[in-house]
Amino acid sequence: MASHKAEALLVSSPASVRYLTGYTGSNGLVLITPLESYFFTDPRYATDAQANIDCKVHICRKGLFEEAAAVVKRKHLKRIGFEPSWMQVEPFEKLKTKLGTGIKLVPVSGVVENLRAVKSPAEIARIRAAVSANSEAFRKTLSRVKPGVREMDVAAELDFQMRMLGAEKPAFETIVASGARTALPHAHPTSKKIEAGELLLIDMGATLDGYTSDMTRMAHLGAPSKRTIALYKAVLAAQLAGIAAVKPGVPVSRVDAAAREVLKRHELDKAFVHSTGHGLGLEIHEGPRIAKKEKTKLRAGMVITIEPGAYIEGFGGVRIEDTVLVTETGCEILTPTSKQLIEI
Amino acid sequence: MASHKAEALLVSSPASVRYLTGYTGSNGLVLITPLESYFFTDPRYATDAQANIDCKVHICRKGLFEEAAAVVKRKHLKRIGFEPSWMQVEPFEKLKTKLGTGIKLVPVSGVVENLRAVKSPAEIARIRAAVSANSEAFRKTLSRVKPGVREMDVAAELDFQMRMLGAEKPAFETIVASGARTALPHAHPTSKKIEAGELLLIDMGATLDGYTSDMTRMAHLGAPSKRTIALYKAVLAAQLAGIAAVKPGVPVSRVDAAAREVLKRHELDKAFVHSTGHGLGLEIHEGPRIAKKEKTKLRAGMVITIEPGAYIEGFGGVRIEDTVLVTETGCEILTPTSKQLIEI
Repeated sequence: MASHKAEALLVSSPASVRYLTGYTGSNGLVLITPLESYFFTDPRYATDAQANIDCKVHICRKGLFEEAAAVVKRKHLKRIGFEPSWMQVEPFEKLKTKLGTGIKLVPVSGVVENLRAVKSPAEIARIRAAVSANSEAFRKTLSRVKPGVREMDVAAELDFQMRMLGAEKPAFETIVASGARTALPHAHPTSKKIEAGELLLIDMGATLDGYTSDMTRMAHLGAPSKRTIALYKAVLAAQLAGIAAVKPGVPVSRVDAAAREVLKRHELDKAFVHSTGHGLGLEIHEGPRIAKKEKTKLRAGMVITIEPGAYIEGFGGVRIEDTVLVTETGCEILTPTSKQLIEI
Repeated sequence: MASHKAEALLVSSPASVRYLTGYTGSNGLVLITPLESYFFTDPRYATDAQANIDCKVHICRKGLFEEAAAVVKRKHLKRIGFEPSWMQVEPFEKLKTKLGTGIKLVPVSGVVENLRAVKSPAEIARIRAAVSANSEAFRKTLSRVKPGVREMDVAAELDFQMRMLGAEKPAFETIVASGARTALPHAHPTSKKIEAGELLLIDMGATLDGYTSDMTRMAHLGAPSKRTIALYKAVLAAQLAGIAAVKPGVPVSRVDAAAREVLKRHELDKAFVHSTGHGLGLEIHEGPRIAKKEKTKLRAGMVITIEPGAYIEGFGGVRIEDTVLVTETGCEILTPTSKQLIEI
């Protein structure tokens, strides 16, 4: 914030508001000033907010931004940082009008996101709980998959099992893709039946106590072909190479390169159409991105995914993904599920 | 658009993009000009978009807005409408820079939303399908509720059943609240067990083929007290009064007032802390809002919820909600589930 010469920061992105205050509702705003922090919400959340949030709590009958503007004026603040990738043009224009001349709104990106990228022990414990529900739901569901079951039924069962294990919801739309559909990196589960002789890709995550997990595993119905085994082995080698590169101080681009180089050796680099991973926490996608041109260096306490894949149109695709904690000396793979190609 | 003197419109809200093009992915942008419509997306969706979208399809290697800006310049368009409640400050500023001087960005609100408020027969058919999965999942799940079951387990079962009936997902976080927690209009399901002698509130919706449903029903474990019965009857009378007021040409505020007046007669108007309903379709909340000061007049083809409630802290709350289609002569209640207070 100092580098932007902002005296205060308005935080409106829901995950960052939750991170700063613990507020889990849908209508909250935080104003951080040098001396105090203020929290704004509407009357529905009055009791909860006043009891639990360690800020000056304002219950707003009108708009949250209006009330925040009044505080800014009362405190004679002149340069207010805001999150340009979270603030819409409409509230922004209203806020500007409300503040009037003499008060400047300064775009400030990534301040809270940077704090959020390194997890506290309490946050890591929550991610472990999400990872555990995720893997356990996978284990329970997979034992019921057999030829003739629809992709959407497997997805529904995975989501149900995660819920029964304490998750609030899936961290994203669970992907269950079979046969040639495994070559679509963002396949929605359909009414297609999973058939003998097919690859099966499951990409799933749990949100538990606000925190997320992310895992991809592959199965094959019946004995896989040589080509499938070769594809699987190449992606697994790439994933292990990515994990081996994870260590504090390493630029994320090097982790991405480590996975990419292995696929290149197998002439599969063009089949790897996405980045190697992403941070996760209160959001399923948060900093750092593990990608080609990203310069961020890993720090102990970051939690990231390592998930290379290779996709061959008309044949199928393979992706293998773990949730990984960066430690002082390297990393810990949080996901306990085996990475052997499962034969059903 | 004419009233804003905009020659073209940039549509970036995902539901409106889907409405205009059928695109169901997460990265689409539409530019409507007098002669042509353009659709912008990234390479992941190339095959799908080129085959299925009836616009000039641009597959963008860089940003979607950058590419749209290039089209605007090439076509010599000078005034471009955009959606101020959907466009964030960051892409907006980039777009402005890219367009340069001489091209004006004009905030234009609600153009596509107004079209979306009146549903086509095909859309109504999809909403009926969502309503049907919703009610059927409710019926199947309710037969399994008994004292000792946790709220979160009932929610998980409802969501699972909706999925098995073809829904992609719940239309919103399913609410299952029991006992005094029914007095919280936005209760999250918890590990609290549902006990004999308690009220049970279930507020659920399905998203099926992109379209949503919304329903709230009440049950009671064991015989309800006189006070509970009186509360239930008052809310039911309010809900029926709201429905009776639904007809083309009627301002939505009058529907809200019809429900509110009944609760006032029962001295429950202060216990009714939200609005009477909302439109639904591709989004669970869309136009029109059925609320006090709203001036919109109902039109045949609108699909709305009617959902008055009364909430008494420490005792409990009742809400009853149907999904309702405005017809030429009045309305049709789409939700088939009975509105008797269910005794378990």
